[in-house]
Amino acid sequence: MTGETSFISSLRAIASHPAARGLIDDAAVLEVEGRRIVLTHDMIVEGVHFLSDDPAADVAWKLVAVNISDLAAKGARPLGLLLGYSLSTTSAWDEAFLAGLGEAVRAFEAPLLGGDTVAAPPGAPRYLGLTAIGEAAGPIPCRAGAKAGDALWVSGWIGDAGAGLRIALGDLHGDPALLARYRRPQPPLELGRQLAPLASAMMDVSDGLLIDAARMADASRLALHIDLAAVPISDAFVAAVGDTQASRLDAAIAGDDYELLFAVSPSEDQRLGAIAASLPVQLTRIGHFEAGSGLRLAWQGAAIPLPPRLGYEHGA
Amino acid sequence: MTGETSFISSLRAIASHPAARGLIDDAAVLEVEGRRIVLTHDMIVEGVHFLSDDPAADVAWKLVAVNISDLAAKGARPLGLLLGYSLSTTSAWDEAFLAGLGEAVRAFEAPLLGGDTVAAPPGAPRYLGLTAIGEAAGPIPCRAGAKAGDALWVSGWIGDAGAGLRIALGDLHGDPALLARYRRPQPPLELGRQLAPLASAMMDVSDGLLIDAARMADASRLALHIDLAAVPISDAFVAAVGDTQASRLDAAIAGDDYELLFAVSPSEDQRLGAIAASLPVQLTRIGHFEAGSGLRLAWQGAAIPLPPRLGYEHGA
Repeated sequence: MTGETSFISSLRAIASHPAARGLIDDAAVLEVEGRRIVLTHDMIVEGVHFLSDDPAADVAWKLVAVNISDLAAKGARPLGLLLGYSLSTTSAWDEAFLAGLGEAVRAFEAPLLGGDTVAAPPGAPRYLGLTAIGEAAGPIPCRAGAKAGDALWVSGWIGDAGAGLRIALGDLHGDPALLARYRRPQPPLELGRQLAPLASAMMDVSDGLLIDAARMADASRLALHIDLAAVPISDAFVAAVGDTQASRLDAAIAGDDYELLFAVSPSEDQRLGAIAASLPVQLTRIGHFEAGSGLRLAWQGAAIPLPPRLGYEHGA
Repeated sequence: MTGETSFISSLRAIASHPAARGLIDDAAVLEVEGRRIVLTHDMIVEGVHFLSDDPAADVAWKLVAVNISDLAAKGARPLGLLLGYSLSTTSAWDEAFLAGLGEAVRAFEAPLLGGDTVAAPPGAPRYLGLTAIGEAAGPIPCRAGAKAGDALWVSGWIGDAGAGLRIALGDLHGDPALLARYRRPQPPLELGRQLAPLASAMMDVSDGLLIDAARMADASRLALHIDLAAVPISDAFVAAVGDTQASRLDAAIAGDDYELLFAVSPSEDQRLGAIAASLPVQLTRIGHFEAGSGLRLAWQGAAIPLPPRLGYEHGA
């Protein structure tokens, strides 16, 4: 086991409360007077989750967005945020961070309610934590609920953020929109709310489409088939890296998409179509679940081997 | 302004939601169907809030306790915790941390609901964040509610943790109970719940009795008189550092006490006495509020000058 896998396995023994959902999901759900309070906490660390020269305003946006994305995956609307912030030794970075935080708080209608600031030791990387509190109006899909026969769907475009990261690193030239997709993810909150009643399982795509999909299949104790050719890629992505089996695979393992990945019974296709028609969002069927276990990948009808790495593995 | 003061001042402009309470309090309060959900997030950083050679189990306990202390100050019972954890490169520290976390979760009846782990860059100090969610049964005192004529009270013993820190640093010999008070604070949750209905203002003592009391007076726009000779010190404290004006002043500025500091009208003395009689806790009247501003200190009836430092100032 990796360090994180082993640690989380030990944490599970402590987190025995039903609201913890066995730590399988990225959010906890507390019932308060019949209302469902969704709670999530994500940290981002300089040099690990963001680059030292990423604009501070974008780092603030991303910190909010990665947590909002967990609320989106539970079909919750934001009630508020708590910030854990390590102060810089110079104030320019902090001021730019605050500007980006203000933009994100307004964009996601997620009020900042409190938190903590610490003075970090000199030379230490920045650690930024955020807790998002949300409320779901109805049943909350978890990642373990997929059924044999369900289709697997994904929202938006996959791989844009990965290409944007390569642009940020100077490894790729491409449309600045790709860089914006890396630095300013836009988790689809409203889509999450509309999907929650009909998705049998839902999660966000953060570590990579393939690894996150494999986690949903594992948690649901099912086999999953994904058609790589169906993975939705954007025109900007194609312009930058082409439309080949290799580029779609890159897209499917890159991560940082903050789109929604969800399992839906084919009997719900009509409702799903109505949701897709009512929102400015692309929904794409990329696979299906069957009895069994494991992830299988196909390209234009033919089975292809899994890549050695399915996405970002924490603590590996 | 210090870096943190300036940063928090800018944060206030963003945190305009009423639940943020102007970021004056250490906890936010969300109303959900008439129930009061209390939210707090505190971080502790290696080399700043704990020592590198502090036992990991004690660090875990302290991380939980400092957040539980904020719930105690709002009269809330814990509903759950979210952990933000930076993994170590070796697993022994992590395992000991988990053992302490399990103990704290059980002791404070605060279920662990979720969180996030990150792999820190090599050599980076440990950053640990915790979000505590609680619920208050009735009105929630803030630190700004003290009234002229109110008495200022404090629970427990002040200065034990400061003496314990000096023992940990090798600067002092004394009862191991003092070290335990530094490493394993015991915020008085039940006392907080019973005090909440009658305290006009309440907060925990974390940065030092004098600085925290001055903050309550400032937030309440009142002058505050404190009798240093009344500050409650324990037998173990006296045995280690003596009972002098200097040692009581040390106690009053040392911090890490995680006791409750609260303002109560003299008309509530009878109810306060009943609470003190029903719980195994010492309550001590140490001062009173008047119209005006500023903190004034007395020793056996005579005014004495304020020390240059009233406690721990963040970001200073």
